[in-house]
Amino acid sequence: MPQENPLPDLSLLCSPKVVAMIGASDDPASIGGRALVNLMQHSAYDGELMLVNPRREQVAGMRCWPDVASLPITPDLVMISVPAVHVNTVLRQSAARGVRFAIVFTSGFGEAGPEGKKLEDEMRAIAAGSSLRIYGPNSPGLCNINEKVGFTFSPSFPHDLRRGPIGLATQGGGLGRNVLQAMDRGLGIGLWCSSGNEVDLQVSDFIAHMANVPDIEVIVTLLEGIKDGRKFILAVQRATANGKPVVALKVGRSAYGQRAALSHTGSITGSAEVNSALFKQLGVIEVDDIDELADTAALLARARPPRAGKPVAIYCSSGGASALAADMVGLAGIRLATFDAATTQVLAESLPSYAAIGNPVDTTTAVLTDDTLIDKTLLAVCRDPDVSLVLMPVTIDYGDATVKVAESVVRVQAQSLVPIVPVWMSSRQGEGHRIYAEGGMVPVATVGKAVKAVKRWLDHGQWLAARAADAGPAFEPLLLRMPAGREPVTPARTLNEYEGKALLRRAGIAVPDSGVARTPDQALQLAERIGYPVAAKIVSASVTHKSDVGGVALGLVDAAQVLDAWDRIHRDVGKAAPGATIDGLLIEAMARSGGVETLVGVSRDTVFGPVLTFGLGGVHVELFHDVARRVLPLSRQEAEAMVREIRAYPLLDGSRGRPLADVPALIGLLLKVSDFVAAHPGQIDEMDLNPVWVGPLGQGARPLDAVIVGRFAAPAVNAAPGLAR
Amino acid sequence: MPQENPLPDLSLLCSPKVVAMIGASDDPASIGGRALVNLMQHSAYDGELMLVNPRREQVAGMRCWPDVASLPITPDLVMISVPAVHVNTVLRQSAARGVRFAIVFTSGFGEAGPEGKKLEDEMRAIAAGSSLRIYGPNSPGLCNINEKVGFTFSPSFPHDLRRGPIGLATQGGGLGRNVLQAMDRGLGIGLWCSSGNEVDLQVSDFIAHMANVPDIEVIVTLLEGIKDGRKFILAVQRATANGKPVVALKVGRSAYGQRAALSHTGSITGSAEVNSALFKQLGVIEVDDIDELADTAALLARARPPRAGKPVAIYCSSGGASALAADMVGLAGIRLATFDAATTQVLAESLPSYAAIGNPVDTTTAVLTDDTLIDKTLLAVCRDPDVSLVLMPVTIDYGDATVKVAESVVRVQAQSLVPIVPVWMSSRQGEGHRIYAEGGMVPVATVGKAVKAVKRWLDHGQWLAARAADAGPAFEPLLLRMPAGREPVTPARTLNEYEGKALLRRAGIAVPDSGVARTPDQALQLAERIGYPVAAKIVSASVTHKSDVGGVALGLVDAAQVLDAWDRIHRDVGKAAPGATIDGLLIEAMARSGGVETLVGVSRDTVFGPVLTFGLGGVHVELFHDVARRVLPLSRQEAEAMVREIRAYPLLDGSRGRPLADVPALIGLLLKVSDFVAAHPGQIDEMDLNPVWVGPLGQGARPLDAVIVGRFAAPAVNAAPGLAR
Repeated sequence: MPQENPLPDLSLLCSPKVVAMIGASDDPASIGGRALVNLMQHSAYDGELMLVNPRREQVAGMRCWPDVASLPITPDLVMISVPAVHVNTVLRQSAARGVRFAIVFTSGFGEAGPEGKKLEDEMRAIAAGSSLRIYGPNSPGLCNINEKVGFTFSPSFPHDLRRGPIGLATQGGGLGRNVLQAMDRGLGIGLWCSSGNEVDLQVSDFIAHMANVPDIEVIVTLLEGIKDGRKFILAVQRATANGKPVVALKVGRSAYGQRAALSHTGSITGSAEVNSALFKQLGVIEVDDIDELADTAALLARARPPRAGKPVAIYCSSGGASALAADMVGLAGIRLATFDAATTQVLAESLPSYAAIGNPVDTTTAVLTDDTLIDKTLLAVCRDPDVSLVLMPVTIDYGDATVKVAESVVRVQAQSLVPIVPVWMSSRQGEGHRIYAEGGMVPVATVGKAVKAVKRWLDHGQWLAARAADAGPAFEPLLLRMPAGREPVTPARTLNEYEGKALLRRAGIAVPDSGVARTPDQALQLAERIGYPVAAKIVSASVTHKSDVGGVALGLVDAAQVLDAWDRIHRDVGKAAPGATIDGLLIEAMARSGGVETLVGVSRDTVFGPVLTFGLGGVHVELFHDVARRVLPLSRQEAEAMVREIRAYPLLDGSRGRPLADVPALIGLLLKVSDFVAAHPGQIDEMDLNPVWVGPLGQGARPLDAVIVGRFAAPAVNAAPGLAR
Repeated sequence: MPQENPLPDLSLLCSPKVVAMIGASDDPASIGGRALVNLMQHSAYDGELMLVNPRREQVAGMRCWPDVASLPITPDLVMISVPAVHVNTVLRQSAARGVRFAIVFTSGFGEAGPEGKKLEDEMRAIAAGSSLRIYGPNSPGLCNINEKVGFTFSPSFPHDLRRGPIGLATQGGGLGRNVLQAMDRGLGIGLWCSSGNEVDLQVSDFIAHMANVPDIEVIVTLLEGIKDGRKFILAVQRATANGKPVVALKVGRSAYGQRAALSHTGSITGSAEVNSALFKQLGVIEVDDIDELADTAALLARARPPRAGKPVAIYCSSGGASALAADMVGLAGIRLATFDAATTQVLAESLPSYAAIGNPVDTTTAVLTDDTLIDKTLLAVCRDPDVSLVLMPVTIDYGDATVKVAESVVRVQAQSLVPIVPVWMSSRQGEGHRIYAEGGMVPVATVGKAVKAVKRWLDHGQWLAARAADAGPAFEPLLLRMPAGREPVTPARTLNEYEGKALLRRAGIAVPDSGVARTPDQALQLAERIGYPVAAKIVSASVTHKSDVGGVALGLVDAAQVLDAWDRIHRDVGKAAPGATIDGLLIEAMARSGGVETLVGVSRDTVFGPVLTFGLGGVHVELFHDVARRVLPLSRQEAEAMVREIRAYPLLDGSRGRPLADVPALIGLLLKVSDFVAAHPGQIDEMDLNPVWVGPLGQGARPLDAVIVGRFAAPAVNAAPGLAR
């Protein structure tokens, strides 16, 4: 693919004016036949349509041409359903003819074995060497529902045609159409792309396209793997820039899922933790199950989330369900609104005396016999100035009474911009459910799922507010700064502690004063100049885990102890690692007592590039996995946020009588580590600063040990004797 | 209520032979009228029915009697729908007449204000003084669905009549009927009781009844509050003894939920943490949302869970959905089965070459065009010896093709005892859904919910296995050992540390050697006899937080330091707490270094009695809430389990090169604390042993500080000078 245009214009793919069907057939059981029926009978397509089938004069009453070359005009789009062995011939002809897009329905390629993979390699070459862009193979097609045009062989196409502002970009067809069937809850999906084996066009290309077109307002995607991290980031950023939220479900959070995704679409799922971290940084709203895509997208499409975490209301005719909903709202950390006097007055005047008129509102079943109560009271709740959304559990399907309630609710919704979210809790889906759906209210199936969707909606509002408040430059992952294929050629190696710390010191990161001693005398001189107590650590190219071989002595308080340590370390290392070369001892200032030990790590994610991990040292990471992660680079805002988001933050903030730690110095260190990685593009494979000592406020933050694995010429820093400060 | 019969026989309430309707009416809009229609037209009731209405000669073509007293025979059950002010008159008459049960539909009692509460007190007195048991008031009635008999005014009664082995016991009517409507997924519910304001009969009484009757196999309950912890425990234990699992949803996990439950049914929800702990101890399966009650109960009713955590299979026609399901199965910690050669051969021979025949099985859409493939391959998966359950995501509603698949699956299920769990993932609920439902397969709505249900099913199997393996006596909460109303009358007070430790020492719990010194000389003598280093702590009835007033000195290594400490403590306490009486200093052995600090607490739950909490000291509890809780008493098995279940357990078990802690001593201490509380029934309000020092293996576990709040005569122990060991 040409690097210069990573996100192509797909308008002519989604809305072509001239289309040719290659492999056209009258057989309604064939792929070519079904695709033709969908386009000719069930679509509102009004452009040119030409058919290609060398063995037929006519199909469906239309003339057939023998091949693409002989077509009277050049198609914008060809749909291909010929057998796998013929597909590349058709693609080559199409490329030569100047066709812009090809949809390949045919399967039996990469998913079928090595032969198929070879054919896919050929396809990739055809796309790279021409202006033809390929969608598929093994794709169920593309449905431009807002224009009522289907380039798809799916017999379900005519049943899934509810227009709307949601764009859906998936890889596999099955899960994609599952989301589409949420149309039965009232979800309107304007465009569905399902990119199959993705030899050329990927999900990210369609996210970018949906970011551009005006009829799509919310983008939903379902991913097994992300092939190209750059594209994904650029696509999402385009969506954000155009004010369109992206909701994503990512498979691959467990080993079973990773294995299954590999076998299904050959996708490498990548690290779930890194994916989730990047999603958060980009404002991508991640969900846990496929139904939550529709729940969340529907809410975002219905109403913009409030920028500040405004509270919500619960309105219900069952006291039990309103208690259950309040319970779950509380558990999710969402606030319930406090009604003002006007709202309270309307509720008190309209509802029976035994109704609950606080929040949650329990109207009692009085509304089932007098639905005018809903028009009055629900509207009053929507208009309360403290209410950003109304959660409305519908506990039971009572038949006609439930229908009347639903009609009233739809009527009220038409008079208010505050979204009312019906929760259709019953397994009985009667006419009332249909009325909510037809009213565009997309009923959610359970209280728990509704609360999750509301929480995501509110959180996204807060993310947008924080982004708007951030004056800094837009987040541009380091990955984007280094074009693909330009990694350094130097092989990676593990730097010794002295080299690592020297690099950090050059990058402006404070490390303890230290120097390398090659003789006991040099060790004593260094210790005097640094000031006792000192640490002594072996410097050796062949020893990585210094403590394990007895290569570390801490807290040496005088000359005698330094000399003792010299002897002991040389003796112990000699025993534990007989062949090891000893280049000397690192003599280093000890951290003052009273600090907190943290850790800072950098790793390189295969999809998204350098990632920084921060946490407290020791058991916090091991037992509680209490870490914060960010794809680099860090903004100051993100660095501050990641320090605050670990659960152990109270150990740093001076609460409960503990000393206030030097958090500003820690944040400065995180930013400098980020800058250091940025200054060495593609060179840093791994950094492990552990522990990083964070002193009381004013005393700084310093890595006490540093392991760096990177692509540096050896030695990166000459370990000459003498003191480095 | 008579204490002697805490769980009454409710057979005549659920299956009465003679019934009278008090407040019978011809008006189909009235409660009395609707109840009559339900019983006469929609029920298969074949006992006597008599009507009472003093203002009518006839209702519904039947004779009306003026009151209960004048009825020709004594009813087993009266249903009451007269206005609230007349209800107690009817109840008194019924009691006098010897009626056994009354269902009170009428509302406007406790939920309506203080007047109603007074009427409820009268009801309680009527029940207590007679053999009449009262169900309600404010109850929607009772549905004995297996006998097709409804004593209810609900117009929904005729629509919710799917018989089955589930018993449902709820408080409120709305959520109860919501569960009932899961009948549309194929759930068969044999008996539904909804006990309303519970002046007499409670949810627990119905759990016990369902434990007794043979047609109920799984019990589902939905609770806002548990009024009587004893009853609940006894009822659940009866269910367990009879091999019937209990599935529960408990509202009140957040402050909002607690407040809403109080306003809805006046329920005090109790501590959610204690509820959950007790549920686990009793084997009650707790769920998070109401739909999960039906999901979980259905699975338990369909098949006994395997006793050892046997693995499961995933069988699906969409590769994407099977990857999603595998991902979630992995996240939940459930294992996927490894198919044996015979299964693999059938799959390989029957399915297309591009299908995935491992686990998850991706049949591909081949099964949509040839449903005989399902009969072969799904049955083979069910018969694989490693498979305990088959999870079957149904991704899309394809109409007829989906119907055929469903018919095949139902056919296969009839040939295997291994449950197949269909996940109807689509929002479109067509005929295929109905076929799964009619086939009794209770389709679940999402992959995530299905995995949760399967996880609970497997976990319950493991709980049953552990229970069967435990040779000890059955769990009998301390609460049950002390009948209600016999609490000690001595008021509670906070014991000083010396008293507390003396009580512990008497109970066989090792505490550090110590003694109380009233003079500096005594302090020195004690320190000599204990051995340095020692701690010195103030003994004062008026000081609770000793450290806060400078009343503690630790690590005193010689006589000079002890004398210094004597002076300093007296001076500092004199300044910080001028009026405090100082009874002397506690001189105590210091714990050796190298141990781990834990904490052990006991509190008294208002519903379930004494509860023990265990965790690691310091940040573990504060930041990570990493504690284990059990309602007392502890069995050895539970004590072991609670030490192992904290996330910080690796700090005790010698992993990663840390010293192995004296876990046996710790477990012994937990058991002794449990025994200590048991030996003082109702006397201990609170114990806070923090820290409890746990030494390296062989060095024991000792509380270093102890605060006990209890109902002890003062002083419980005389703080005489001298050394206590």
